[in-house]
Amino acid sequence: MTDSAKPAVRVETDTFGPIEVEAHRYWGAQTQRSLQNFKIGGERMPAPLVRALGIVKLAAARVNVRLGVLDAKLGDAIARAAQEVMDGKLTDEFPLVVWQTGSGTQTNMNANEVIASRANELLGGQRGGKSPVHPNDHVNRGQSSNDTFPTAMHIAAAEQTVRELIPALEHLHAALLKKSQEFESIIKIGRTHLQDATPLTLGQEFSGYATQVAYGIERVKAALPRVYYLAQGGTAVGTGLNAKKGFAEAFAAEVAQITGLPFVTAPNKFEALASHDAMVELSGALNVLAASLMKIANDIRLLGSGPRCGLGELKLPENEPGSSIMPGKVNPTQSEALTMVCCQVMGNHVTVTVGGSQGHFELNVFKPVIIYNVLQSIRLIADGCRSFTDNCVVGIEADRERITKLMNESLMLVTALNPKIGYDNAARVAKKAHKEGTTLKQAAMELGLLTAEEFDQWVRPEKMLGPSD
Amino acid sequence: MTDSAKPAVRVETDTFGPIEVEAHRYWGAQTQRSLQNFKIGGERMPAPLVRALGIVKLAAARVNVRLGVLDAKLGDAIARAAQEVMDGKLTDEFPLVVWQTGSGTQTNMNANEVIASRANELLGGQRGGKSPVHPNDHVNRGQSSNDTFPTAMHIAAAEQTVRELIPALEHLHAALLKKSQEFESIIKIGRTHLQDATPLTLGQEFSGYATQVAYGIERVKAALPRVYYLAQGGTAVGTGLNAKKGFAEAFAAEVAQITGLPFVTAPNKFEALASHDAMVELSGALNVLAASLMKIANDIRLLGSGPRCGLGELKLPENEPGSSIMPGKVNPTQSEALTMVCCQVMGNHVTVTVGGSQGHFELNVFKPVIIYNVLQSIRLIADGCRSFTDNCVVGIEADRERITKLMNESLMLVTALNPKIGYDNAARVAKKAHKEGTTLKQAAMELGLLTAEEFDQWVRPEKMLGPSD
Amino acid sequence: MTDSAKPAVRVETDTFGPIEVEAHRYWGAQTQRSLQNFKIGGERMPAPLVRALGIVKLAAARVNVRLGVLDAKLGDAIARAAQEVMDGKLTDEFPLVVWQTGSGTQTNMNANEVIASRANELLGGQRGGKSPVHPNDHVNRGQSSNDTFPTAMHIAAAEQTVRELIPALEHLHAALLKKSQEFESIIKIGRTHLQDATPLTLGQEFSGYATQVAYGIERVKAALPRVYYLAQGGTAVGTGLNAKKGFAEAFAAEVAQITGLPFVTAPNKFEALASHDAMVELSGALNVLAASLMKIANDIRLLGSGPRCGLGELKLPENEPGSSIMPGKVNPTQSEALTMVCCQVMGNHVTVTVGGSQGHFELNVFKPVIIYNVLQSIRLIADGCRSFTDNCVVGIEADRERITKLMNESLMLVTALNPKIGYDNAARVAKKAHKEGTTLKQAAMELGLLTAEEFDQWVRPEKMLGPSD
Amino acid sequence: MTDSAKPAVRVETDTFGPIEVEAHRYWGAQTQRSLQNFKIGGERMPAPLVRALGIVKLAAARVNVRLGVLDAKLGDAIARAAQEVMDGKLTDEFPLVVWQTGSGTQTNMNANEVIASRANELLGGQRGGKSPVHPNDHVNRGQSSNDTFPTAMHIAAAEQTVRELIPALEHLHAALLKKSQEFESIIKIGRTHLQDATPLTLGQEFSGYATQVAYGIERVKAALPRVYYLAQGGTAVGTGLNAKKGFAEAFAAEVAQITGLPFVTAPNKFEALASHDAMVELSGALNVLAASLMKIANDIRLLGSGPRCGLGELKLPENEPGSSIMPGKVNPTQSEALTMVCCQVMGNHVTVTVGGSQGHFELNVFKPVIIYNVLQSIRLIADGCRSFTDNCVVGIEADRERITKLMNESLMLVTALNPKIGYDNAARVAKKAHKEGTTLKQAAMELGLLTAEEFDQWVRPEKMLGPSD
Repeated sequence: MTDSAKPAVRVETDTFGPIEVEAHRYWGAQTQRSLQNFKIGGERMPAPLVRALGIVKLAAARVNVRLGVLDAKLGDAIARAAQEVMDGKLTDEFPLVVWQTGSGTQTNMNANEVIASRANELLGGQRGGKSPVHPNDHVNRGQSSNDTFPTAMHIAAAEQTVRELIPALEHLHAALLKKSQEFESIIKIGRTHLQDATPLTLGQEFSGYATQVAYGIERVKAALPRVYYLAQGGTAVGTGLNAKKGFAEAFAAEVAQITGLPFVTAPNKFEALASHDAMVELSGALNVLAASLMKIANDIRLLGSGPRCGLGELKLPENEPGSSIMPGKVNPTQSEALTMVCCQVMGNHVTVTVGGSQGHFELNVFKPVIIYNVLQSIRLIADGCRSFTDNCVVGIEADRERITKLMNESLMLVTALNPKIGYDNAARVAKKAHKEGTTLKQAAMELGLLTAEEFDQWVRPEKMLGPSD
Repeated sequence: MTDSAKPAVRVETDTFGPIEVEAHRYWGAQTQRSLQNFKIGGERMPAPLVRALGIVKLAAARVNVRLGVLDAKLGDAIARAAQEVMDGKLTDEFPLVVWQTGSGTQTNMNANEVIASRANELLGGQRGGKSPVHPNDHVNRGQSSNDTFPTAMHIAAAEQTVRELIPALEHLHAALLKKSQEFESIIKIGRTHLQDATPLTLGQEFSGYATQVAYGIERVKAALPRVYYLAQGGTAVGTGLNAKKGFAEAFAAEVAQITGLPFVTAPNKFEALASHDAMVELSGALNVLAASLMKIANDIRLLGSGPRCGLGELKLPENEPGSSIMPGKVNPTQSEALTMVCCQVMGNHVTVTVGGSQGHFELNVFKPVIIYNVLQSIRLIADGCRSFTDNCVVGIEADRERITKLMNESLMLVTALNPKIGYDNAARVAKKAHKEGTTLKQAAMELGLLTAEEFDQWVRPEKMLGPSD
Repeated sequence: MTDSAKPAVRVETDTFGPIEVEAHRYWGAQTQRSLQNFKIGGERMPAPLVRALGIVKLAAARVNVRLGVLDAKLGDAIARAAQEVMDGKLTDEFPLVVWQTGSGTQTNMNANEVIASRANELLGGQRGGKSPVHPNDHVNRGQSSNDTFPTAMHIAAAEQTVRELIPALEHLHAALLKKSQEFESIIKIGRTHLQDATPLTLGQEFSGYATQVAYGIERVKAALPRVYYLAQGGTAVGTGLNAKKGFAEAFAAEVAQITGLPFVTAPNKFEALASHDAMVELSGALNVLAASLMKIANDIRLLGSGPRCGLGELKLPENEPGSSIMPGKVNPTQSEALTMVCCQVMGNHVTVTVGGSQGHFELNVFKPVIIYNVLQSIRLIADGCRSFTDNCVVGIEADRERITKLMNESLMLVTALNPKIGYDNAARVAKKAHKEGTTLKQAAMELGLLTAEEFDQWVRPEKMLGPSD
Repeated sequence: MTDSAKPAVRVETDTFGPIEVEAHRYWGAQTQRSLQNFKIGGERMPAPLVRALGIVKLAAARVNVRLGVLDAKLGDAIARAAQEVMDGKLTDEFPLVVWQTGSGTQTNMNANEVIASRANELLGGQRGGKSPVHPNDHVNRGQSSNDTFPTAMHIAAAEQTVRELIPALEHLHAALLKKSQEFESIIKIGRTHLQDATPLTLGQEFSGYATQVAYGIERVKAALPRVYYLAQGGTAVGTGLNAKKGFAEAFAAEVAQITGLPFVTAPNKFEALASHDAMVELSGALNVLAASLMKIANDIRLLGSGPRCGLGELKLPENEPGSSIMPGKVNPTQSEALTMVCCQVMGNHVTVTVGGSQGHFELNVFKPVIIYNVLQSIRLIADGCRSFTDNCVVGIEADRERITKLMNESLMLVTALNPKIGYDNAARVAKKAHKEGTTLKQAAMELGLLTAEEFDQWVRPEKMLGPSD
């Protein structure tokens, strides 16, 4: 920016004519036009998507040079500039919002323009312009937004899933499993319908949570094969017009090499442009995680409720003051953050589903809103799981005294008597004890259904933790 | 029923006391109580779920006899009665609605009561009562509603998926594939953003639809492994209390044998009772299908729009009069039915997700609403696909004349010139032709960008259907 | 039906030609064709919608006779037959499923055919046929499915809302309000974040529930003005072609008279055919009720959790045995049924929203799925509220002893000290008591922050139930 | 920041002890702690919510001074600092994300801390600390997060609705109405089921859109009464403990005065803290708008499809190049942005609904996620409508030539013959013309059903635009 009040500008052109762009910016005419035409919200294209576009342009440049359809010198400059995009060095040059053209064309052109601009600079020329490197003819060589943008969507979603989400889930899983082992000898009352039920160990209870997360990881992984399919090579409508034969396959291999992930070219490019079923599917796996995590976080805050008027079986870490008016109050805030994340992910899933269902003919034009929501869901679950693990799960302690007290008072230990005196008689015992506020043993003996010795032998919580021999 | 005005009744009892039941009914006290306490809606427990409960009780009886915890004579009578439930012979004896206890206990008891009642009848006694066969002590032996009902949910969902849904999807897939082949030589205009784009074949377009369905089948199959996990053996809270060691495994094997499907016992029973993530996952696969089918059915009705003022590329089968006021009108009604099904499935998925997220401690008590929605979604997609295939897809014809006419008028054939004259020049050609209402060739030549011969050589739709050599 | 194996048939015709119909049926060719073309699911058009079609045809016949476009004798026979449909006497003659043409044309024709058929019978002729009364030319006179079906949707939704839903909500509201008054002197611990907080009365707690329901009634009523708009008179595309001037207004007045509800003709018929925003809006009001009832039912089951290991502040009515394996167990089954209803309503709302968003040009063709879901939601909430009220709310009792015990142990009574000793000092007191397991008074005095007299004067739960003077 | 590498810090304290804060920041210990404990996503509390907190603190300070519970000098400093927050001058001091404690306590404390800190600075002291102005004892006087945060939610939602959303909707409505008038004499083919139907004017078609938006405004306004209810005065659990009598009413009046909006104190504070039904309701009104706008934007892009192979009835403004590969392509990008917004709003509504249903006892702890989604939806619809209006609607032109051509070819003009020759005969005419590719007139005459003169007299599109005399 010059020191005058108005920033220096340069003139860029597209097929609509000339337009002024701030001189220090790398972007060109189409990016500028989009800025002016779409003043909607403030949600920019997510960083992982911009990075993925860098990967796309890098891989395409390399392959185009190899296939002989792009001059090596230009290709090299493009590759260097694309690498900078991939490495997050030009993030500020991607100012466009999600609410633009539904194909993401403007963001693809943003990438083409920034990379051409930077490549031209690298080649000794000035920032901007279309020569020697042209945004469409060179950076976008053999590509269309219609295959580039969904390719970037898949790359971004896969990278975030593999690099962020799955490790975070594994982190939570390990913590839950460890707690499950730590708590394996603590016998507690079970609760079904929120009502007292037969006993189990606190370790068994946590093993259920750990299993939910373990399956959640399996589910995410089960969705990846179709995320690894790349649309690139389909160009405008899926036919591959203007791409070179072999480009699609070589491109996918190049991306696989760059990212270390097993991307392959999509078997059918028409599906790959016109639908985003793979995103709906991945979002569905995130949606199951949201349901799982909602359950886990709810249980943990309910078990930690109190300190004196709740269930009080768990002591959750105290991380911050809980109330601006109630002194000394501590709240299960990590559960609250995580369950809010779950609500967001469930809603995002509906957004993705509706957007995914609305393709027309050769193109689905809800691409930006779909990837924005998928990436937000991935990040929120990943971050939420890490925060929940580190600031809550690892510090959970059992209140053994209270757990034992509650368990011993329970009437549902009577279930152990079913095979001995039958369901109907056992029910009489439980109902009598409940009505009269006595112990099961007292009630059983008053009903004359068994002896004290029999009761003590048969009703033993530690024998109620598994199937009978 | 006797010939008096009031039906004959018998008195049944449960732990709440005696209650009158119509004498000709097989059900007992708890079923009757539920009928009176839950006068909500009219949606009965779905037939596949009742069948699955028959399978559960049959398998449990067989295994309990083998394990020596159930008298063989009683067990045999139970098995015969359970088989009748499984075979749909006692459907009218399952009158309970979905909106009951959230564990499905009342429907499990309905099954226990009907089977005990029928078994007692078979054993020479009378219909009803608890002797010699007792609903809880014998039919429900080693079981709890808490493991029985989710087991029945998984069996019903798996059977319907494998027996109804997948074959219906394969039926649709085959029809789409056949059309794709039939149409492989018909070159047509592509459309992106609903706007004219570069050409493709009608066969390529249909190949995208076929691929969506093919992937949809993969997705459903990818969800099945966790549906094949059975909760049975977990009893009340997941520990397996009152079940015999080995029961869980033997039971799953028995169910696998009865159904011919690879059911196994769930590795973690706490997860299997307290969550229904597997149902949320399966519903997620159905949700992707809903998105896919919405796209396909929408495309087909748009392509068939007209007959004179629409796109008119396809001729859809005419199955019925379309209007009560506009004589001779024919509508794409199969697309309409199918897209309505898609809306229902998307909404059902939200119901399943919310219900699935709301478990507490050892039990999720949204079981009936979850399975009701999953089974409705499965059936609607299966039936919808069959109807759509048989009454629409197989009869679709291409209007070759119109397709060719539209394609030849398109301006986007200009894209073929990109590699020859560059994107910016090609844009000038297209814009000029659009503005002046001329052909591309005329515009290109007036701009002096190429010769007529070059144009004819380069702009050939039949050469625009794939990548270049 | 004759006594031969195959039922007797008659031949009906439509513009597609002849088709066989069972002779005892009133319906005609188009109904029969729909039965054959849409073998999808089993969800029939809801009874209130069929009733509403009877109202439509009755009102139209009367108005057409008055306007001189329908012969009085034919009109009278139509009116009599329509009245029978309205009164539910011909329900079995409406066999079509929801999953048909998206305009509901087939169900409108079903009504036209049944009424013509019955009118012909009444006029001394035979059942069926088109003479003297013709389904299209007479019963459907001045109408199209495109205005008839949405009119029936609005009539059905309004009737069910006013006659079923609002009274049921008022029933629940009254019961909650009564409990609120009954419990007004019971001071209990408040809970925020599931953690102990400052006290309130149980009556205050229930007043919140009552208020939610009261506002819910307001919300439903706020949606009705646009439900009272009737599309009738718009005919095929909203212009009113083939209807007589004045028909629309007279028709609405006639329906208002028949139903006793303030229906008026829709100000803009194009909106009334092409969108179902009024249904999405009404469904939105039901969705808020679902959120409210979920909260209320959850609270009640949590407060009633136990009997020995939960919060145990409320004693819920015991309506049935709760477990097939745990003798004597009683569960909050009415809360469970109601919360399952809430899940269904939330999902239905998504179905209605998606369907409502998908109109094209002059017609939304998701009409059947929209009204099916709206009517299901209305019925489920209405029935659910009645069941919950009668089988749970009215019988709720407070466990005063336990409530008082918990309240007195709470640490959050310390909040009363904020204005006296400041937030930070009050926090020291609470934390010390929590850590050392002592009372607040003990901790406060040990910290030397106030005297025993001051404590007793300032920390009085009965003074903590409202703002200070 | 000092010129050393590490920024200068000061030590702040809360009831958890001391913690370092960067010296130039206004916030204190609890804000800092939240930053460290909730590293989830990057979505900060929305600016309108921060502004609303400024309004809350300003109003509370003024009222507390008037009620004599806050020193006038401190109150004045608080008011000045709060005004700065309200005016957006301290936005950077609100760094917390949405995913924090579910009561928004940390953001309320953020406001308390920043305002205290700034007030202390204004009073001649230093930035930060708790003296003379204390975040809890003075800024939060008579308040709790539990009433403050929902109050701020309602203020923010109401301000954004009234100041941004409704004007934007009115802007769109006016543009649609103007187009409706501009197009009132253009007769075009109607389309139902996407199939040719009877004619209407383009102005009538647009009148439907305008009506949808007009009703949408009514719906939003119908939700406002309950948004104008303020929770303030309920303090911790709804009782108003530690607030002064009269505070609630005076506070609401003060906020009404500051904002110019008719806020009043909520009649029942228990509902106001424990539920967010008013937000679910408002979100429901936004959801209807999403459905409406989806329909309108879809219609417009379909009518504008082409330029040569689509419907082509409308010419949409060309704002930018549409394709990176297809030169000269122009797309309906404003429709695309708007329909993506609609998907987001539908998904957000599910998030709000689920969060809204999950309150427990005296508090709903999904407050941040609820307000984040409501405010995002409001902003996206408001911005989306403005962008769509200015960049699309106002520039729409009708292609009169094409419209007339299509209309004249239509077969559904036959409907005008129903009252003359009956439905069945009219159908014969249409079917014959369709089959043989002839005009209706030709077919009608060949069938001998009417004369050429009769046809010309009866089948006149300009007479088919309304009911008959």
